[in-house]
Amino acid sequence: MGKRYRITYEIPFYETDVNHCVKLPHLLSVALQVSGMQSAELGVSDQYVLDTYGLVWVITDYNISIERLPRFAEKITIETEARSYNKLFCYRDFDIFGQDGQKMMTIATTFVLIDFETRKVAPVPAELIAIYDSEFIKKIKRGPKYPVLENAAKTDYHVRYFDLDMNGHVNNSKYLDWIYDVMPIDFLKTHYPKHIDLKYVKEIHYGRDIVSEVLLEDRISRHQITTEGQINAQALIEWSAVSEEA
Amino acid sequence: MGKRYRITYEIPFYETDVNHCVKLPHLLSVALQVSGMQSAELGVSDQYVLDTYGLVWVITDYNISIERLPRFAEKITIETEARSYNKLFCYRDFDIFGQDGQKMMTIATTFVLIDFETRKVAPVPAELIAIYDSEFIKKIKRGPKYPVLENAAKTDYHVRYFDLDMNGHVNNSKYLDWIYDVMPIDFLKTHYPKHIDLKYVKEIHYGRDIVSEVLLEDRISRHQITTEGQINAQALIEWSAVSEEA
Repeated sequence: MGKRYRITYEIPFYETDVNHCVKLPHLLSVALQVSGMQSAELGVSDQYVLDTYGLVWVITDYNISIERLPRFAEKITIETEARSYNKLFCYRDFDIFGQDGQKMMTIATTFVLIDFETRKVAPVPAELIAIYDSEFIKKIKRGPKYPVLENAAKTDYHVRYFDLDMNGHVNNSKYLDWIYDVMPIDFLKTHYPKHIDLKYVKEIHYGRDIVSEVLLEDRISRHQITTEGQINAQALIEWSAVSEEA
Repeated sequence: MGKRYRITYEIPFYETDVNHCVKLPHLLSVALQVSGMQSAELGVSDQYVLDTYGLVWVITDYNISIERLPRFAEKITIETEARSYNKLFCYRDFDIFGQDGQKMMTIATTFVLIDFETRKVAPVPAELIAIYDSEFIKKIKRGPKYPVLENAAKTDYHVRYFDLDMNGHVNNSKYLDWIYDVMPIDFLKTHYPKHIDLKYVKEIHYGRDIVSEVLLEDRISRHQITTEGQINAQALIEWSAVSEEA
């Protein structure tokens, strides 16, 4: 068992969607912040890791299971644990509990450390990961197979100034903006994502033209984000009707 | 003097821009949340106002003065006061103090109450505004004159799903996304907004094509946001070089 860390958080109005639930990109950003807070508390903040190793933590995969989404003004608890790791990959879970104390979501993530300058993946320093009491595993977790989409509906986007974070990179959570936005709004008003697999393949830089593609069949939507014909991210979302939730 | 209300807030990583300062749209959202928190504490929450009068608070104008912007991880204090009002308009200030205790920004806002169904401006109920100890004034504050822009640079945008708030309207803070995004990134990396006047003329609805126009001359940028040739918002921003700040 890795060390656990938790915060409580109240869903603000300005991060709530038309269904009165939290905007998912925001929740992913907050979760990432919580992992940074744990690292800081353990004395290995993001800044320390950069200064000491020249490395930065980057998320490569999300595997998200949702019973229900946090609602406007709900006081949720986000609990996280750096569960396990192998030579290159670290697996961290975020469990999200509602105001009623029930677990409503699990965000399972894969992190890697990349060299800040070269952007190449680096092995996990043993003394760094040791601090989290994370379990060493040999197995490399594989996400689902994402077939390359053909004849999908395409919409063009463009990286905006406020999509960039402090490091001048497009924030991970922004990809979900482009993924959601290609879905019909009437569908989004009546469905919520029961399960999401999302894989980041290649970083997107400022000024790029982005294509967001989607194929929606039987409540499964398959997504790919590309720039100049190259895949940047892929996703697979299983949706449930909102009425089924009650 | 109106009743004052304050919170402290730490600027998160995911709301920090390439200059390591808070993203301004986010700060405006947080400020709006703070006014809602004061109202709730005084027993006249947004929900109460909707249930009792069928009205909702809407911001029509911003007048923002900035000494410096809050930085990443800075713990700021946001202090607000419903300063004065007349028959239709309520004037509320937000003073923002840095971790050093110095005032760094004032966000002066004009609020009106609109009928939730008809979206028409309604007079301010006397017993509602009385709760804030706000001063009655006869004078109607006028913002600057915003000339209609001609031969300005135009960029097209589209309202996205996550631009919508719980009520299905485009959140006020999103307009600043379109206003900032038409500025050259090299300019944004070397300047900060010293003063902003922003006027909301007409609400924008989902699915609309938006045009963001800008004329930049001598560190003054003039902006207009239009849909189908009709003006939705106008802004005037005076910029300072980042180096002048030090």
